[in-house]
Amino acid sequence: MASWCYLNGKILETASAGVALNDIGLLRGYGVFEVIRTFGKRPFLLAEHVARLQKSAAFMNLTVPAGEDQIRHTIDELIKKNAIASEAQIRIVLTGGPSKDSITFDPNTPTFAILVSELPQLSQEVFEKGVALIVTENQRQIPHIKTLDYLTAVRTWPSAKVRGAFEVLYTCDGTVLECTTSNIFVVKNGALVTPKERILLGTTRNYVAELAQKNGIEVEERALSMQELSSADEVFLTATNKDVVPVVRVDDTAIGGGEPGPTTKRIMKLFYESIPYGR
Amino acid sequence: MASWCYLNGKILETASAGVALNDIGLLRGYGVFEVIRTFGKRPFLLAEHVARLQKSAAFMNLTVPAGEDQIRHTIDELIKKNAIASEAQIRIVLTGGPSKDSITFDPNTPTFAILVSELPQLSQEVFEKGVALIVTENQRQIPHIKTLDYLTAVRTWPSAKVRGAFEVLYTCDGTVLECTTSNIFVVKNGALVTPKERILLGTTRNYVAELAQKNGIEVEERALSMQELSSADEVFLTATNKDVVPVVRVDDTAIGGGEPGPTTKRIMKLFYESIPYGR
Repeated sequence: MASWCYLNGKILETASAGVALNDIGLLRGYGVFEVIRTFGKRPFLLAEHVARLQKSAAFMNLTVPAGEDQIRHTIDELIKKNAIASEAQIRIVLTGGPSKDSITFDPNTPTFAILVSELPQLSQEVFEKGVALIVTENQRQIPHIKTLDYLTAVRTWPSAKVRGAFEVLYTCDGTVLECTTSNIFVVKNGALVTPKERILLGTTRNYVAELAQKNGIEVEERALSMQELSSADEVFLTATNKDVVPVVRVDDTAIGGGEPGPTTKRIMKLFYESIPYGR
Repeated sequence: MASWCYLNGKILETASAGVALNDIGLLRGYGVFEVIRTFGKRPFLLAEHVARLQKSAAFMNLTVPAGEDQIRHTIDELIKKNAIASEAQIRIVLTGGPSKDSITFDPNTPTFAILVSELPQLSQEVFEKGVALIVTENQRQIPHIKTLDYLTAVRTWPSAKVRGAFEVLYTCDGTVLECTTSNIFVVKNGALVTPKERILLGTTRNYVAELAQKNGIEVEERALSMQELSSADEVFLTATNKDVVPVVRVDDTAIGGGEPGPTTKRIMKLFYESIPYGR
């Protein structure tokens, strides 16, 4: 994390900023969040991220204590104050705030933090050669809301890394869902298929689906089986801090001959071309 | 919370103690905990709580950075320093600690906190007249481990209170599981039945089950159907900070004629008699 952060209305030194031990976000994992990246040091898809944050908050009986303009202004200030060199990754966290009894919270005193850091750079190899996934049976609870609940994600991460996987793919009873921190697309006969239900609808996912359709690529948003995934021509991931990443292996199954395919490459090109300050 | 707490090896003023904004307990809800009560200002079932904490920690690739003796010593110190007047409620929280990338943590730098407060006193009415539950379909993820994941618990709490319920009873496909922060027992023909799988095995639950058996009351630990619950002679809850509480209504169904029954009363009596410094 960078030296300065935003917490409950103030810009503070990150080293001295903290949440109370009775924060219900800490005691009960009760909160929601967003991760945003910049292009040209300007937050990308900010309106979509703020809208989702508000939706997540409402579901959890929380209120986002700042509007889009104020959030944008704070992000700009943090990017400048922290002298972000390349691009920024921004994390917005909203919890129920301090709790007197560890089970209730006062909606009027939430914990609202905005953290920035340099955007982690994925290696060129990731984009050029593609990545591997490992599969784990896991249906997230309240999947459509971006809650702090990443127990399974954090717990399965080390074993994924040991096995050389980029992310963990969650499946449930043979249905493909989503990955640790990304959404999944398959390509079959030039068309895209991506799950729609029981997952978090990523902002990059939504953006890429729309972008593909605008460029004449068919997109089906529907339940996707593991069998379809295994026999796909191509597979790729989308995520805020990963953009579009080709997948060339899922467990022991090579996808598309083990190399990124033409449709994935086209989507990656369309993605960066669509952004004024692209890579 | 009381004025003084323990955090990462030090006794600190609670008001100035906090966790960093990049604590994985806060960012990802990644941690485990225990709640302990005292009798005669001495922690009750401490060995059992510490053993469970160690088990929870191990499952989450965490290590409890203190043994039972050190934890007991710290609890004693906090009870004295905070001048706890009646009995104490103790909360031990262990998270993965600070995270550099929001997904991994260093097992060598966990966040380990011990908080004490006056034990919340339930009204005499709760014990004498019994309480109501409302039912919600919910299977907790990783239910056998006491993780920080209480999203559904916190979210459903206000509506339970509006409806006059003491706790929310979780069920899954007609199977009775557990309540927000307690375990459930039913009494049928003088014998106890309590769920065993897909729940957190409470320390008070285990203690009461053993106590009942020692006193000639049969206890079956097995899957329990909603139908059995509805037609039970009596129902009661067990929890660290509630002891044994009679249940007289589940949603719209009166249990045992709407009054605490004889077996429940006997269990309550046996419970306090079994403790040297009981109520």
